[in-house]
Amino acid sequence: MSQPETRSPKRQVSFRGRSNVPVASSNAEGEDAPEFEPFGLMPRGPPPLAEFLDIKEVDMLSGPDEMNKREHHTELYSNPLLIVRRGQEFQIKVTFNRAYEPSRDQFLLEFVIGNSPQTSKGTYIPVFPDPERVGLWRGRVLDSTDRTVTVGITAAPDCIVGRFRLYVAVLTPYGIRRTRRDPKRELYVLFNPWASDDAVFLNDDGERGEYIMNESGIVFHGEASDISARPWNFGQFEYGVLDACLYVMDQAQMPITNRGDPIKVARKASAVLNSRDDDGVLVGNWSGDYTYGVAPTSWTGSVEILLTYHSSRQPVCYAQCWVYAAVFNTFLRCLGIPSRVVTNFYSAHDNDGNLKTDIIVDEEGKVDRFRTKDSIWNYHCWNECYMSRPDLPPGFGGWQVVDATPQETSDGLYRCGPASVQAIKHGQICFPFDAPFIFAEVNSDVIFYKRNKNGTLEAVKVNSSHVGRIVLTKEIGGDQPSDITSQYKFPEGTAEERTVTAKAEEYGLCRQKVNYPESDVQVEVLAQEVRVGADFQLTLEFKNQSNHRRTIKAFVNGYVVFYTGVTSDEVKYKTLNVTLDPWQTERVIVDVDASDYMNKLVEQSNLHFMVTGRVDEGNQIISAMRVITLHTPKLTIEVTGSPRVSEETFCAVEFTNPFPFNLENVYLRMDGPGLMSTKFKQYSLISPNSSVMWSQPFTPRRAGPTKLMVTLDCLALRHVYGQVDVNVEL
Amino acid sequence: MSQPETRSPKRQVSFRGRSNVPVASSNAEGEDAPEFEPFGLMPRGPPPLAEFLDIKEVDMLSGPDEMNKREHHTELYSNPLLIVRRGQEFQIKVTFNRAYEPSRDQFLLEFVIGNSPQTSKGTYIPVFPDPERVGLWRGRVLDSTDRTVTVGITAAPDCIVGRFRLYVAVLTPYGIRRTRRDPKRELYVLFNPWASDDAVFLNDDGERGEYIMNESGIVFHGEASDISARPWNFGQFEYGVLDACLYVMDQAQMPITNRGDPIKVARKASAVLNSRDDDGVLVGNWSGDYTYGVAPTSWTGSVEILLTYHSSRQPVCYAQCWVYAAVFNTFLRCLGIPSRVVTNFYSAHDNDGNLKTDIIVDEEGKVDRFRTKDSIWNYHCWNECYMSRPDLPPGFGGWQVVDATPQETSDGLYRCGPASVQAIKHGQICFPFDAPFIFAEVNSDVIFYKRNKNGTLEAVKVNSSHVGRIVLTKEIGGDQPSDITSQYKFPEGTAEERTVTAKAEEYGLCRQKVNYPESDVQVEVLAQEVRVGADFQLTLEFKNQSNHRRTIKAFVNGYVVFYTGVTSDEVKYKTLNVTLDPWQTERVIVDVDASDYMNKLVEQSNLHFMVTGRVDEGNQIISAMRVITLHTPKLTIEVTGSPRVSEETFCAVEFTNPFPFNLENVYLRMDGPGLMSTKFKQYSLISPNSSVMWSQPFTPRRAGPTKLMVTLDCLALRHVYGQVDVNVEL
Repeated sequence: MSQPETRSPKRQVSFRGRSNVPVASSNAEGEDAPEFEPFGLMPRGPPPLAEFLDIKEVDMLSGPDEMNKREHHTELYSNPLLIVRRGQEFQIKVTFNRAYEPSRDQFLLEFVIGNSPQTSKGTYIPVFPDPERVGLWRGRVLDSTDRTVTVGITAAPDCIVGRFRLYVAVLTPYGIRRTRRDPKRELYVLFNPWASDDAVFLNDDGERGEYIMNESGIVFHGEASDISARPWNFGQFEYGVLDACLYVMDQAQMPITNRGDPIKVARKASAVLNSRDDDGVLVGNWSGDYTYGVAPTSWTGSVEILLTYHSSRQPVCYAQCWVYAAVFNTFLRCLGIPSRVVTNFYSAHDNDGNLKTDIIVDEEGKVDRFRTKDSIWNYHCWNECYMSRPDLPPGFGGWQVVDATPQETSDGLYRCGPASVQAIKHGQICFPFDAPFIFAEVNSDVIFYKRNKNGTLEAVKVNSSHVGRIVLTKEIGGDQPSDITSQYKFPEGTAEERTVTAKAEEYGLCRQKVNYPESDVQVEVLAQEVRVGADFQLTLEFKNQSNHRRTIKAFVNGYVVFYTGVTSDEVKYKTLNVTLDPWQTERVIVDVDASDYMNKLVEQSNLHFMVTGRVDEGNQIISAMRVITLHTPKLTIEVTGSPRVSEETFCAVEFTNPFPFNLENVYLRMDGPGLMSTKFKQYSLISPNSSVMWSQPFTPRRAGPTKLMVTLDCLALRHVYGQVDVNVEL
Repeated sequence: MSQPETRSPKRQVSFRGRSNVPVASSNAEGEDAPEFEPFGLMPRGPPPLAEFLDIKEVDMLSGPDEMNKREHHTELYSNPLLIVRRGQEFQIKVTFNRAYEPSRDQFLLEFVIGNSPQTSKGTYIPVFPDPERVGLWRGRVLDSTDRTVTVGITAAPDCIVGRFRLYVAVLTPYGIRRTRRDPKRELYVLFNPWASDDAVFLNDDGERGEYIMNESGIVFHGEASDISARPWNFGQFEYGVLDACLYVMDQAQMPITNRGDPIKVARKASAVLNSRDDDGVLVGNWSGDYTYGVAPTSWTGSVEILLTYHSSRQPVCYAQCWVYAAVFNTFLRCLGIPSRVVTNFYSAHDNDGNLKTDIIVDEEGKVDRFRTKDSIWNYHCWNECYMSRPDLPPGFGGWQVVDATPQETSDGLYRCGPASVQAIKHGQICFPFDAPFIFAEVNSDVIFYKRNKNGTLEAVKVNSSHVGRIVLTKEIGGDQPSDITSQYKFPEGTAEERTVTAKAEEYGLCRQKVNYPESDVQVEVLAQEVRVGADFQLTLEFKNQSNHRRTIKAFVNGYVVFYTGVTSDEVKYKTLNVTLDPWQTERVIVDVDASDYMNKLVEQSNLHFMVTGRVDEGNQIISAMRVITLHTPKLTIEVTGSPRVSEETFCAVEFTNPFPFNLENVYLRMDGPGLMSTKFKQYSLISPNSSVMWSQPFTPRRAGPTKLMVTLDCLALRHVYGQVDVNVEL
């Protein structure tokens, strides 16, 4: 008897046991459809195809002046292929070998995206030119002249967004004949804010003009009472940007089938725009050392970043919050999701899910720098994108916060949103995604704790109006800030605000209760504008709001801070003794010399002054905070003559070093939507009081109003920039 | 004039610009507190400490028989340190150099966790033995005899869970004197289902006994009408398991401050229990090739897995869903969160967020295997954990679904939940986390599409009762299944079910509408139990429910499937022609021989039969599906005599190879809570019809009822196991 054989099951490839096919998550790849697909058994010999329709030519009507791009608001994209928006008809011309006879001939257009196309997944879409045969997309014959048929096609208003391949196919009794794959017959389908049944519908021409079509923008920064405006070239229509944005989703391995849902697209993008977790687009760096990349302050726009990411397939170095927000804005506008960059001044960085930022003072009222570990960002930029929220109860559609900056804890992962702005305003923070985090960024309290000798802490003062002081975005059609604070919160002290606080507390965001006497002495540090390198005087205003005499011992403490609120070196420390008569107001001047801070400045040149102290009578604690953002020198930018399309013209940039020290390795960048790709210039040294002049030729590509932006950057001086309006004539 | 110097700012370390301190996210690390902390200026010379209290000894009262562990239900943990639960008083004895005089002496207990302890973060907690001084934790003197003071301490019911360090400190006018750090004075604080103000409060002794205290469990698997039960040793009290669970959170870099929130703990654990994204605990593998690790079917319990992960600091190979669920269960019970393993039979694997599983049939009604790409898992295991949900509106507390198995798309990341079971039942899927995903797992429709010649698909039949057929968990106090389907959904066809469907549709989960005639012919594949290696007969039952004669052409198609529903090889294909008189029922027998399937089986030995076909009259489509789970041979397990604590006894395991082929490299594993650490035995060959007998000595550690479990595993035969009840006497 022979030995029985040992059974050895076949080895399976890894995904086999889990799913039948890997999930299609690349828009760049895709199999070809066969040129001839037979129906079952065939008679021998070549099939008698002659009598059937033959396709001679397919015209995508994709020229920038043709009706498709004009009607679909895609004429600005520097891209030769057809670009249309979903939920709106576009046209394609098919030329056959003979006249098309509807009674006898049957043809269809097949739209395919990604690998493993399936009708039920919306990745294979057959369209018949027959209004009776309603599939996912509608088709009809608009015109039939001689051998050419013009077909009108309307993509479903919730279809996948991305790059489709088109095949034209003729049905014969023997099988399907279709056109060969041809890159020229590919087309992009985008979100459509002009279509009322698209989830991103935005029913206002002015808003669409700004939030979809505007290629240049302003990022606000600085301090709540001394706001600066930084220009940015979003460049969503520049050559290669659309493909780079699709590549970003491929890189994130986002399933193709999810790419028609703006909620999922925005959420995924908030994860992949930063390099954490997933080798995404931008590497964050707040260290001051940008040796191995470009300083965050140095960028002029998104185009260079996205194209570099696409070509290198490596994260781009470096970004801080406004860079993330600006590139995210490009991504969203490019795909057709209305979006804007917003800046929240005094943004709490909530790293443990409570609503508190803690400042510890000692028994005398002096800040204990060693034990004070929380920080408040001077400002923080994020994005809002506009969409309906069918996943939430009614009322939470509209603007949604998304944030690509990798903060410490957004549910433990580096992504954030979309969170409904309406939900944040009303304290309905139980709905996805990440609403409690954003609620805290605009609503946290600053709490002063007194540290007693035995080490215990006692909450002595709450400032609930410091954080989220003002939320700004660029106005529609202009460069001024538009105050949208009221979209995030009700005014301080109103009944609505109290209701919202109560609501948020229901959901576990508890505010600190303080059982400590409200101080009847107020102190304020007055706002002022200061140039980098200038001596200045800080004005403190003490107000006694009681009928009694008050004796105050106060500490003035000035620190260089990063824009994230993190303190660097001390620049000023002074003790003040102030005595106030009943209802008296007194101003105290504190001198700050340039020499106090110049050697200590970190990028963005912010100084943070804090006044804390104790009123002898009644053991009251007083406090005030003010960030002074030192203004950097400006660039002078001038464009020669009246620029015309395709004619060379010049831009002159001038800069004078106002400091008593050398600037070394100074790097300038110039950029402008429709004007040029990014230009660079480097100076190895600019000595004190000397000037440099950069004259750069460029040839405008497009007519119309646009902007030209320049930045200057070196180790000792960052955040120097300028812009000029340019109107290009035909 | 000398050349001005070039300014060069200091380089900053990387986190400096972003936050003042890195977020504390390790429970394993922690700085020492100083032994003496002076208050401000000190007189010269050694401080006159003699007159003040001096600490001689601190007794943690951590013995297993002492009141602390008994009252806190932690006496089963194999751990010499004190283990207590929050929101409930425990005791510590402090012995001084002389009698404690409350009027004159001041001392406090300091509880510290992680790096950078802060009062406001709950990571530094000073406790005074004085009911008047209410801090985060309460303290009082229970007894003061001679020089020894017994202090009662109650940790806040929402405090951080983990391993704390204790310092005892005496306040003197010159500063604080405290005990030196001592590992013996560390203690664990756990969640407390016995405390009414803890978020995991579970008000039932029987439920707590099962969902916190039970160390052994059952995982149900197989097929909805032929359920198998697999034993598992959760081993949450075994030596080293608690430390391993804390290490899991450290490895996930979970901020210490979040570790008191059971929602965040459960969510984080669902991410880190799988190795995707984060080098978590278990590597998933569904391939059939487990060369570089342990086959998922081979494990007997969680202890081996968690201890290996902790010691190797590498993901452990390999897991499938029940392994993830069982180890997750250990993690949750170990930390004090009530939890159970549940099994959903016919679990839809929704990889594009809709509620459909698509099956494509051709015009004759035969399944198009090439185009059918969706799959339904025969069963899928996940966990439920019990907690309040303050982040959601009222009504959604209680059992929450969490799932650590890395499925394709849970919001693009490998984690899932917690999602309220109540919310899933009521279609309120707008609340976090991942409710739509779980809703689809129990509520998806199976949709049959007919593929027409021109390639278009037409939905012809919907089966809405197949998916989520039954949801089971082990009953309290016994080994039988408890049917909890009604906690996930309302009965099919009720008004409530329709309301829930409408609600889910509001949130974007749309069901397919089919405008196709309901078939008046029904077909069913009858359930049956089959042994691996047996020939069997499949019984199909056709029912004509009309007044007319019906002619049916049907296709029977049998495939070997993975438990994930993914098809492997075909084992049967047969065409049937059935003619039915009005109201006639006919049974058709289809023979399946062992030789048809034996060479093709994959692990877990499942066969999937599908009957599809067309009724000639009226163009109706009929269909039926049935999974036959082939039963593997059993192990015979016997324990000698009456086992006693600390006395050696023996367990005998017997197995006979019932197959006509050799089994090679057969691996056995034995395990039992309180009985032994995992034991192994390997046989290089078991020839047909021959038996092996493994006699293993062991020495029980604990008295009481427990279980002993054995698994057998080899390439050709998996999922063989057995268990026996053992009652250990003192």
